[in-house]
Parts: sequence; C-alpha cells; structure tokens
Amino acid sequence: MQIGFIGLGVMGAPMAEHLVQAGHRLVTVLNRAPLPEGLAAQVVASPRAVAEASEVVILMLPDTPDVARVLLGEAGVLAGLRPGALVIDMSTISPIETARFAEATRAAGGAYLDAPVSGGQVGAKAATLTIMVGGTEADFARALPLFEVMGKNITLVGEANGAGQTCKLANQIIVALNIEAVAEALVFASKAGCDPAKVRTALMGGFAASRVLEVHGERMIARSFAPGFRIKLHQKDLSLALDSARVMGMALPGTASAQQLMSACVAQGGAEDDHSGLVRALEGLAGHSLG
Amino acid sequence: MQIGFIGLGVMGAPMAEHLVQAGHRLVTVLNRAPLPEGLAAQVVASPRAVAEASEVVILMLPDTPDVARVLLGEAGVLAGLRPGALVIDMSTISPIETARFAEATRAAGGAYLDAPVSGGQVGAKAATLTIMVGGTEADFARALPLFEVMGKNITLVGEANGAGQTCKLANQIIVALNIEAVAEALVFASKAGCDPAKVRTALMGGFAASRVLEVHGERMIARSFAPGFRIKLHQKDLSLALDSARVMGMALPGTASAQQLMSACVAQGGAEDDHSGLVRALEGLAGHSLG
Repeated sequence: MQIGFIGLGVMGAPMAEHLVQAGHRLVTVLNRAPLPEGLAAQVVASPRAVAEASEVVILMLPDTPDVARVLLGEAGVLAGLRPGALVIDMSTISPIETARFAEATRAAGGAYLDAPVSGGQVGAKAATLTIMVGGTEADFARALPLFEVMGKNITLVGEANGAGQTCKLANQIIVALNIEAVAEALVFASKAGCDPAKVRTALMGGFAASRVLEVHGERMIARSFAPGFRIKLHQKDLSLALDSARVMGMALPGTASAQQLMSACVAQGGAEDDHSGLVRALEGLAGHSLG
Repeated sequence: MQIGFIGLGVMGAPMAEHLVQAGHRLVTVLNRAPLPEGLAAQVVASPRAVAEASEVVILMLPDTPDVARVLLGEAGVLAGLRPGALVIDMSTISPIETARFAEATRAAGGAYLDAPVSGGQVGAKAATLTIMVGGTEADFARALPLFEVMGKNITLVGEANGAGQTCKLANQIIVALNIEAVAEALVFASKAGCDPAKVRTALMGGFAASRVLEVHGERMIARSFAPGFRIKLHQKDLSLALDSARVMGMALPGTASAQQLMSACVAQGGAEDDHSGLVRALEGLAGHSLG
C-alpha cells in the first residue's frame, strides 16, 4: 500500500520501518531532521504532497498544535487528501481537538481514526505497542493490518473519534499516579531506615504489584533516570487530561497533584529525565534521597 | 509448640486455625466475641495468663491502642511473659509505637518481631498471606516455621523493629494511590463517553497494568463494593503513614489526598465498603457515575 507517514521521530521512525518491512511504500515530508538512516521512503515537499500520493496518511507528532498545523495548514494533509483516504493520528493529543480534526477530515472527503500508542521506544522498535483506537468499525478493520505490523494489544475503544485519545490519557493518569505511589512508598520506607530494594521485593507478590513497581521502582532505586519516557512529555499528557476534565466539568485531584510534582521536576532541571524521576520531587519534600 | 494467640477476628481466626492444623496447641483470651466455631483453643482469663502458658505470643489486633493495652496493661502479656518468650505482633499498627513495644518486651526478658500481613481474609484463609517482618535474623528464624504455616511471601525487611510495619504502610500507600489512579482514569474515560470495561481491558497489557487495575478496577465497573478490605481500615492505615511521616519530617502529598478521599467516602456512609469504593468520592467530584 502507498502510505504517507509524517513524524519520523524516536517513535515514528521504527514504526515506519516496520511498515516498509511489511512491503508498504512510504511517502514522507521532512521538517527538522533528515530521513532516518536506512529508512526507504520517498520525500516530498509538504504534507499536502504526502496526502496527494497516499491511500493512508499516518501522523506521529509531538502535540495538538503540530497535528493542527500538519492537517489543517495551507499546504496541509487535508488540502491534498484523496477521496476516501484514511487519516490515522497516532500522536497523543487532545481528545476534544481530535473530534474537530476528524470532522474536518470527513468534510474533506476522508476518514479518520485516532490511534495513540503506549509502550514507548522499546515497544515501537519491537512492534509490541499497545494501540488504542477511536473510530468506526469499518475504518478500524481497514487499518488493522497496519496496526498489526506496529503493535500487539490493539483495541477499538469506541466508535466516536477521541475515544482512543481518551483511553491513552486514562493510561497516562494511571501510570503517573502509580509512579507517585511507588515513589511515596519507597521514600517513606527509606526515610524510616528500611532498604527500599527489600521493600520493593516484599511488595511485588501482593496487591501493590504493578508494572510500575517492577520497572520504575527499580529505576528509582538504581538512580537510572535516562529516558525511557520523558517527564516533560508526561507532564504534557497530564495537562491534556486536566484540560479535558475541566471542559467536561469534573475534578481529577490526584492527576492534578502528580502533574504539579512533574512541574517541580521540570523546575529543578529534570524535564528530560525518565518519568520515574518524579521520585526526586518527593525526595525534595522528604529531605531524604533513596540513592 | 504452645502458642498464645490474641485477636481471633476475621483475619486472626483462620490464621490460628492453620497453626492448630500444623499441630500447635493454642491458648487465647476472649474479649468481645466467643471462640470461633470449630477452633480448638484453651481459653484463659487475661493476656497475662496467655503469656504465662506460651512460648510464643501472637497478636492480631485492630489498632495501636489495642496492642498497647494487651501488651502493657495491668493484666497484659508483658506481666506474664516467660523468660525468652517471643512476641509476634501481626497487627498493622504504628511503626514508631512498635519500637517502643519492642523495647518494653526486651526489658521484660522477651524477644519481639513486628510481622504485619497483606492479602486480606482470602489470603488468611488460603494461608497465602504476604508477611513483612522487622526484627533480628535469629528471632526471624525462630518464627519462620510459624509464618510458613500462615503465609507464602515472607520477607525479613530489616533488623530494626518497626521495619515490618513500615513496609506494610508502604504497601498501603501504593494500594491506595493505585486505587485512586484506576478510579480517576475510569471516571475520566466514562465521563468522556468511553466504555470503562473496554478501557480497562485495553490498559491491562501495558505500563498501567497492576493487580489493582485487575481486581479493584473490575469491582468499580461491576459496582461490587462488599469487602474485601474496608475503607475505614485503609483510612486508618494511611493515617498511620501520615503520622509517621510527620514525626520523621517528610511530606506525602498523594497519600494525604487519597486519605482525604477515603474520609469523603466515610462521610457519605461508605466506611464499611471495600476500598475500591473510593471511586464513589471521585464520581461525586465528576457528577458522573461509572455504573
């Protein structure tokens, strides 16, 4: 298939590579960086030109304004969209703006899926991403063979566009609060004189067990804060969740508090740390470091 | 072995039963309730009389003041302690008071382990409790055959008394915040129009995976709030953690917020609900129910 792929960053590049290996032909546009080494793709001048050459256009961009610009801009995807083409936005962006982008895509004669992912760079390289999709059954069926090339745990969460983004934000809420949970528990135990590594092991068999206790707990104890997933990106995702919550008229007190701890990390120069670096904000509040 | 067991409640009764089945002879004292049906135990008049008849005295009581009364009271355990006898406190109580109780036990010629458990009534019945122990290697070795009759995942967390209690509170911090995490995520997704059951399933394969997402997430969706573990007990445990944190001079912002949400549940009549009922406080803050 002729696929447009816009956003060949740390996530996009390995995802695109899997599509090429599965036999698809890629068309892309370059923004800041050159074409990733070894990736076979035709480079054209604009998102519009990408769309003009593609049956499916995949976006993997940093934030909501990037998607708005690439999709709706003067030389944007919608300006060159083929009739019936499918836009798949795999970025993590606002669920509310997503509904607007889907509307505009349909008005331009195309179809739209929001399909954000989790699993990070490791999952992108191993083609084991979790993919959370919002859109119609028919569009999902059309995209499924492509998703299966990039990921493993693939769910159509809801038929309304934005459902995939909502599910991704739910994921980010849980991961952030689970990181805070493990960080508070380990700093508490360590300040009381216990070995945090023994505490982590003791807790892994019971109701406190989680992927975060396993992976991020170990990182906190080992002081291994190279990303992984950057605090500044998680901070952005929690802001999206809080913005959406405000628009919907609901309160997320724990999410707000975790987002503030991430902001404290950013203030202390930790924006590029792995999100397990959240523990440093709590160490600051305890006058005590785990490591 | 001749074992004193004080506190034959929903947890203590099945734990004591396992000790009898393993061939030990039990001595106990009754407070409010009669002897649990089918349990073979000699009943004496006071904690002192229990201690006078026992090589090991196990306590499984609701809260710190109960342990203080049973241990230090006029007709308490320490008043009748045999030379070299071992006191094992399996209640969940203050790590700071635990150090004081251990001191008093040693002054009375005995040895002391704090050994709180997690795994709930189900774990107590199935003899699969997680047991977190504070005390010396020698005392731990002496108690291990008894622990193995009641539990599975048994860890000597630290050689100072209180280490087991600290580890248990770390467990309660993580479980509470993981419950809040899942509750905020599912209420958020549901309010945005997604099916929370689909969202839960989509998230189970990734970094959001946890025992709480599995067990308590399902309870929230199914509106199954019969305990399980009661909110009022978890509220007490978080209060112990916050008290200890204050004494140590550190802040636990997420734990404090989760404790306040549990207080809101209690205020709304939910004290006896399972702790997954925390979701109701968040539903109140969202003007939207999952179920």
